[in-house]
Formats: sequence, structure tokens, C-alpha cells
Amino acid sequence: MDTTLAQLQSYLEARLGQVERALEQYLPIQTERPRQLPSAMRYAVLGGGKRLRPILCGASAEACGASLEPVMPTACALELIHAFSLVHDDLPALDNDTLRRGKPTVWCAYNEAMAILTGDALFAMAFELLAKQAETTPAERVIQVLALVTQAVGVDGMVGGQVEDILSEGSEPTPDGLAYIHLRKTGALIRASVLAGAILAGATPEQLRALDTYSTAIGLAFQIVDDILNETSTPETLGKATQSDRNRGKATYPRLFGLDESWRQAETAIREALQSLADFDERANPLRWLAQYTLLRQR
Amino acid sequence: MDTTLAQLQSYLEARLGQVERALEQYLPIQTERPRQLPSAMRYAVLGGGKRLRPILCGASAEACGASLEPVMPTACALELIHAFSLVHDDLPALDNDTLRRGKPTVWCAYNEAMAILTGDALFAMAFELLAKQAETTPAERVIQVLALVTQAVGVDGMVGGQVEDILSEGSEPTPDGLAYIHLRKTGALIRASVLAGAILAGATPEQLRALDTYSTAIGLAFQIVDDILNETSTPETLGKATQSDRNRGKATYPRLFGLDESWRQAETAIREALQSLADFDERANPLRWLAQYTLLRQR
Repeated sequence: MDTTLAQLQSYLEARLGQVERALEQYLPIQTERPRQLPSAMRYAVLGGGKRLRPILCGASAEACGASLEPVMPTACALELIHAFSLVHDDLPALDNDTLRRGKPTVWCAYNEAMAILTGDALFAMAFELLAKQAETTPAERVIQVLALVTQAVGVDGMVGGQVEDILSEGSEPTPDGLAYIHLRKTGALIRASVLAGAILAGATPEQLRALDTYSTAIGLAFQIVDDILNETSTPETLGKATQSDRNRGKATYPRLFGLDESWRQAETAIREALQSLADFDERANPLRWLAQYTLLRQR
Repeated sequence: MDTTLAQLQSYLEARLGQVERALEQYLPIQTERPRQLPSAMRYAVLGGGKRLRPILCGASAEACGASLEPVMPTACALELIHAFSLVHDDLPALDNDTLRRGKPTVWCAYNEAMAILTGDALFAMAFELLAKQAETTPAERVIQVLALVTQAVGVDGMVGGQVEDILSEGSEPTPDGLAYIHLRKTGALIRASVLAGAILAGATPEQLRALDTYSTAIGLAFQIVDDILNETSTPETLGKATQSDRNRGKATYPRLFGLDESWRQAETAIREALQSLADFDERANPLRWLAQYTLLRQR
């Protein structure tokens, strides 16, 4: 396990550097017009973040014989979609969060109008990067990724999950309702990140099926651990508000199952994720490390 | 002119019916989960609207030898992007509008959180429909449209224009600043609608250049007339607030040039639009009627 941890750390460092450089380069520079917007977009995206989605996209491309660099536009598109969703979720009308990655949220640093429009611009830019992917990848594969990503984000994906999350505040959580929210709110985009890398790399249908299982399982584990950390961590450690789920009466794993059982469910999901990779060779090791990383986050 | 008007009216009626049926069919039906969101999406899109962008997309496809039906997913995607922008622009933090197409705006009918997320879901669904376009159109053309549309919407398009519009409130308008806002806030998506239909229909580079001129000109005329109607119409006629630009100190054509000179500029733009179609045959007549329609709106 120590070897794994060291390998994971050096892998994450290298990939994080690649992703940061690419994001830095893709994001617009502030010029005379439009005022504020490019700066706000950079503020929302740069300087913090684990870049889990781009790194998963690259690791999945590696597992299927490609690498991160050729899928970078798509990897960054996924990060921009994640960033857009955070900017909107933090708004006063939604989660009303003031702290994100240890900095004031976009609506606090600018204002509500700018936060709404910054989210919109990041969302649009994500699809601009998907179009850019077609400069080096067959258009058919890019279209497949476009369909996958839009489904992961829309009414039956991330946004639908966020709606149910908000509407469930204060009501008694059910395992069914919780699974609905978590599969969509976080799980859908994590799954799309893994499958996008594989599709762009030309994965076989068998590989895609295995990675579907893998990504659904780690998405679930990731959200369970997020719920746990919201309950047990501190704002200093986490860089964002904690105990906020409890204060809002949100449906969470710890609330429904208790902390110990929640950890057990996360561990079970990770075991399943690792098993799904049985037919992959050592090029899938980064995906294996990333699965374990899900459980290692600041326990 | 009377013949033109009659032809335009029967053309618009037929196309409007086709677009309404398609939107009705594409939009998600409200089921158990997610609660409210599919209903709110339908509320935002259905029951009103001129459908100018989808109709322009179809008319442009016709001018290049195709028709509306084969480009319908893209045509409806453009309408969803328009609808998304209206839902967000109406929010209290932005234009704070309560009336749209004679009905309460989405944030009034639901609430702010639902309006933000409904806009996001419509935006995501627009790109889902672009992916769907590839079921019947070569993927390369769809990617070209994706690049075009995302640029029209993002930081240097619609959203950037909206940011400048908001930041310019209350300051002295300049012709330069006004042109920046109008070219992007309304013009960019109108241009993209016309060019998208042409690209999907396999237009030649010469046709695309002519339609670029056409669409930029009618986009400008459309926004000038919008500004004029905001100044001179009534909420009863227009179905949304009037005099709101003046009350907010927004940069508008009437404010900068006066009503008469604004009309003259709109008419000049429409003449330019018609001239740009000189090399097209009678299949471009709908585009010609639509250019004239821009000036006919409730003068």
C-alpha cells in the first residue's frame, strides 16, 4: 500500500501539472471587453481543485492505450463543467456557500449576476473544447463523447440530481432518493469522464462495459466520502464549509446509514471498481490507484 | 409588398407549427424524478415565442438546397439556447424581469434556484440535440456547427455581450460599446442560426460568406427594432416589460441615435442583407421574407 501511495502521489503530481498548464492556456485572457468575465472564469477554475475528472479521463485513455495529452481538450472540458456546476451551486439561491477551495466563492468575490454568467460562459467553453477535440480525433468519437457528456449533465444527470438535492432538503431521506441524487449529482460526470477518455482512445465495447462499472462504483464511493468529510472535517482542512449538509437537512450517507456503515459501503464500491479492471493490463494501474485514492482523501 | 407579407405569414405559420411539434416532442416529460425540472423546462420553452432562430436555421438550409426537417435537432437546439439565455437574463440578479411572453418569468413561476437550474438544463439539452443531429448528418458538419454555436454563446458571444450590457448600465453609451453588446447579445446567435442551417445543408464557401453578411445584418436590425419596441411599445402588446432599458440606463439605439435614425439604420441593414442574397435563387425567398419581417414587427 505504501508503494501504491507513492506511485499515486507522483502520478497525480505529474498529471495535475499537465492539466493546470492546459487550463491556464485554454482559458481566455482578460482584455478590454468583456470586462470582468475572463478574470472571473479564471478565478473560478484556476488555483485549486483536485482535477479529478480530467485526470480520470486521461487515466482511462491510458488504460485503453492512449494518453492524457491527446484527450486534453475533453479532459479540460470536463473540469470546466465541474467548475460551472460549483459556481452555480454556490449561489445564494442554491447552497449559499461563501467559501470554496479556501477562497471566497465567485458570487462573493464578484456578485450574483457575474457568478451566473461566469458559470454559463464556462459551460459554453466546455463544449467549445469538445469541438476542439475533433481537430485531432475522428469526429464520430467526439460526437459520441458529446452525447455522453450532455446526458451526464442535463435533466437526467448532474442538474437533475442538484434539483432533487435541493427539493429533498429538510425531508426524511430514503435510500432510493439518496441513490438517485448521488448517482446524478456527482456520479454522472465522473462516469462520463472515465468513458470519454476510453471512447476517444478507441476502446472496445468490452472495455467500455468494464469502465462503466468502474466509473459508477468510484463515483458512488467519491460521493459517500464527500458526505462523510462534510460531516467530520473542518473548513480549514477542507477549504469549504463543513456540517453544511446537516444544517440544511440534506440527504447524506452518514445521515441515512451512520459513519461506519457509510465507510463500509464506500470500501465495497472500491473493491467492485478494482474487480471490474481485471482484464486490463498494467496500463490501467493509474485507474487502480485513483480508485484507492477515493478512500484516502483526508480520512 | 402585400404578396410578400402574405407569403411570409403562410411560411411562418407552417414553420412555426413544425418547430412547436418538434420542441414539444424533444422536451422531457415530467415524471416522478427529478421533480419540477421537466415541467419548468417546458414552461420556459413552450407556449409562445416567435421561434425566429429555428426558422432562420431552416430557411438557410432551404436556401442551400435542404429543408427544415433534416436540421430540426439543431434548429431546436438554437431555440433552447435562446430560451436558456432568457431564463437567466430574467433573474433578479440580472434584469429582474417578471413578465415574459405575457406569462410570469420562470423565477417568478417557480423560484430563483429552479430558474438557474432550468436554464442550465436547457443549455445542456441544446448540446444533446446537436449530438442527435449527427444521427442523420455527417459528424464533421455537426462538429463545425458545434464550434460555431459555442463561440456564438460563450465569453466572446452572447454571454460576453450580456456581461457588457449589465456593466454598461447607467454609464454614457458609445456607438462602439453599443455595437459590441448588440453584435454579441443577440447578433451572434442569429448569425449562428443562419450559418448552422447552411453548414448542415453542405453550403459552399461562397454561400457561407454571403450568409455571414446576411445574418450579421439581420441580427443588427433585429436588435435595433427590439430597442425601439422597448422604448415605444406597451407591455400588453409586447408581452414583456417596456421602457425597462431606459429605466435601467441601458445602452440602446434610440438613446444613442434617436428613433428616426435608429429606424434608418435598421432599414439600411436589411437592404444590405437582401443584397447579400443576390446570387441565391428563389429557394432563398424565405430568407428574403424573414429579413423584411424584422422591420414589420409591430411598428
